[in-house]
Amino acid sequence: MSTRARSEERRADIVRAALEVIAERGYRGASMAAIAERVGLTQQGLLHYFPTKDALLVAVLKERDQWDAVPDSPWRLDLLAALVEYNAMRPGIVQTFSALLGESVTEDHPARGFFTERYERVRASMTGVLRDRYGERLPGGLTPERAAPLLVAVMDGLQYQWLLDPEAVDMPGAFSDFVKLLGGAAEAPCEQEETAD
Amino acid sequence: MSTRARSEERRADIVRAALEVIAERGYRGASMAAIAERVGLTQQGLLHYFPTKDALLVAVLKERDQWDAVPDSPWRLDLLAALVEYNAMRPGIVQTFSALLGESVTEDHPARGFFTERYERVRASMTGVLRDRYGERLPGGLTPERAAPLLVAVMDGLQYQWLLDPEAVDMPGAFSDFVKLLGGAAEAPCEQEETAD
Repeated sequence: MSTRARSEERRADIVRAALEVIAERGYRGASMAAIAERVGLTQQGLLHYFPTKDALLVAVLKERDQWDAVPDSPWRLDLLAALVEYNAMRPGIVQTFSALLGESVTEDHPARGFFTERYERVRASMTGVLRDRYGERLPGGLTPERAAPLLVAVMDGLQYQWLLDPEAVDMPGAFSDFVKLLGGAAEAPCEQEETAD
Repeated sequence: MSTRARSEERRADIVRAALEVIAERGYRGASMAAIAERVGLTQQGLLHYFPTKDALLVAVLKERDQWDAVPDSPWRLDLLAALVEYNAMRPGIVQTFSALLGESVTEDHPARGFFTERYERVRASMTGVLRDRYGERLPGGLTPERAAPLLVAVMDGLQYQWLLDPEAVDMPGAFSDFVKLLGGAAEAPCEQEETAD
């Protein structure tokens, strides 16, 4: 293996270790010493690859396909459901994402800009997904633009409930319920059954 | 003022300061020194009221009516919408809540048990709210039990999007859109308009 390839591989190992340590302690609680130890380097050795903790965070955030898969290609609603199924099999990555998102709203957090831009992009992308699937009008008279932040909120909010209590919360099932809700008008019967009082 | 009343007041000041510092730095990043300074005490003085940081966190979490208002009384869907409106006027409290929720999924976090129990209770409470408002069947064939985690997820997820970008996200408007979605089948026209291909 060339020196360059070895160096790339080592960088990838470090980013993976950082993802783990952030999942465990959050970004503010993740020390460079703990990350170095996880990957079997001295702290000095780690600084050779990433001179600051923020530089390492940038590399972690660039691994965004870890949570967004292929955000620049066109998405479909059934692929989103498959992504949620996939996420349910990798709690570590979901935990890293959720811990960082939570921290990002605190003052001067280095990931704040990343998440602000990410959500702007994801809402726009989800608007397109919803328009492709449902056209201009969703149940309750919602436009795709107005339903998009709800779709994103459901995905994020379910992750916290599921991480806290995986036995009680069926994340993929709940997401698929939300998709049913979006298709509700199409499926709802016109003759409502009378319910006994 | 009696000594006891003064002491109670001082404790309330400390809890308020802790809420602020947690909003700014997260719980793991909040030092007892910073909280003491915020409230004008020495660190020794703070320890007189709260001997450990975890003891202070317990007091902060007991202030849960800060975010749950009156969780043991029966809720109605329109009161929830009013709560979201109210939250949009107090970003500091929402930020404390969201930062703590995010951190709570990291390993051995002292707030994890609190949030796990809180969500179990809130899902049960929201199931009741939905049943009172919509009966047994919601759009998409959902039961109140299955819609409840979605309602909770939307509230939490919207808070992150709104804290990150308050100009771009109308949190109360989006929540009210979700309520429209829940009532979608009732409002949806039976004759669907034909859309041009």
